[in-house]
Amino acid sequence: MRVIYNQELKDVADDVEHLTQAVSQAMHGAGKALIDGDMDTARAVANGDKAIDEIAKRVIDQCVRFLAQQSPVATDLRVIVATQRLSTTLERMGDLAQHIALTVLRTSPSSPLPDDEATRAVFQRMREFLDITADRLPGMLADRDTGTAEEVIRDDNQLDEMHDRTFDVVLSDSWNGTKQQLIDVVLLARFMERLGDHAVSVARQVVYIVSGFDPSKEPQGLDD
Amino acid sequence: MRVIYNQELKDVADDVEHLTQAVSQAMHGAGKALIDGDMDTARAVANGDKAIDEIAKRVIDQCVRFLAQQSPVATDLRVIVATQRLSTTLERMGDLAQHIALTVLRTSPSSPLPDDEATRAVFQRMREFLDITADRLPGMLADRDTGTAEEVIRDDNQLDEMHDRTFDVVLSDSWNGTKQQLIDVVLLARFMERLGDHAVSVARQVVYIVSGFDPSKEPQGLDD
Repeated sequence: MRVIYNQELKDVADDVEHLTQAVSQAMHGAGKALIDGDMDTARAVANGDKAIDEIAKRVIDQCVRFLAQQSPVATDLRVIVATQRLSTTLERMGDLAQHIALTVLRTSPSSPLPDDEATRAVFQRMREFLDITADRLPGMLADRDTGTAEEVIRDDNQLDEMHDRTFDVVLSDSWNGTKQQLIDVVLLARFMERLGDHAVSVARQVVYIVSGFDPSKEPQGLDD
Repeated sequence: MRVIYNQELKDVADDVEHLTQAVSQAMHGAGKALIDGDMDTARAVANGDKAIDEIAKRVIDQCVRFLAQQSPVATDLRVIVATQRLSTTLERMGDLAQHIALTVLRTSPSSPLPDDEATRAVFQRMREFLDITADRLPGMLADRDTGTAEEVIRDDNQLDEMHDRTFDVVLSDSWNGTKQQLIDVVLLARFMERLGDHAVSVARQVVYIVSGFDPSKEPQGLDD
């Protein structure tokens, strides 16, 4: 029975690794689609979200079954509780990456972003930040690496500042994008900022698994 | 021990009722702040979110403790699993109501919405829809009312249509709000649309509690 218990925990961990890799790939792809104008990648991210949803659902269902059949306690219970939460969050991150990709596809062959230096610069910085974040996620989860988790949590304020800067850029008198471009810039920046917030949420679950302690509330900012 | 078990389940249910009422009140207040320009209500909603966060955290902690100490199965397990999920969602709904209130406070004494008939009309409709939704939540949860849950799930497409209409309104040539107003309209409409999506998520948890079945994936639309 202990063999089955351990095997089931391992299966959950394998699926979480799979899910995290898929979301990480989607985040990279969203940036490539938006900043590099890569339409093949945009399509791949848009189409790949269904698979992310399916893995997340599978993980969550496995966790509930495990609770019903194994009645875990202590660390194993924290792992199962945290895994349900972070899987839900990872699934939403996949959705956000898909939103970015769909926006790129909708406006193609034009970029959703106006041909404006300041706008492109801030989105390039956000893209780089999310590439770093995407690279941190798999190891953070697989290794329960609270050091990396704390970096993710701490660094998120940088993304919030970039997000705030986006508003300064578009509100400046010299910004002359169309109304549609203004809408797309605001929403794309929000999607990227939310990706960072959700990464923090996942990092907090890693800290919770290891320490049993839930760091301070969700990050500041308009989260939904 | 059964007495303690039942008392703890009852305590969780009482706190969920408390949480749902608080979120319902916040939703109503957000609409009052935005559409009626009621600043006292705006402040109350902005300040009231901390209490919502605290109740949600308490509920979630109680659920984890219950899992550790009582090892519930069957319906009770579904209740505990669903309660964790829907409490997280309710807490986010409180945040969204707060975002709306903070936007109203930021632009006051002006409304965030331009003095434009079509804009005000669509936001009035979204406000009315969210008032109906807010009124449905407490009974839906307290009574595990799957009939109401199915109405909430089914009706959400109406809110999505109103949200889409907002874009049509602002993109029309006759719309002459400022850039800041365009930004605020897009974000406020998004916050309201997300409130509806989250209400659907809560409704799905009610269906799951009663039937053990998780209705089809999250509603269509750009959710984060």
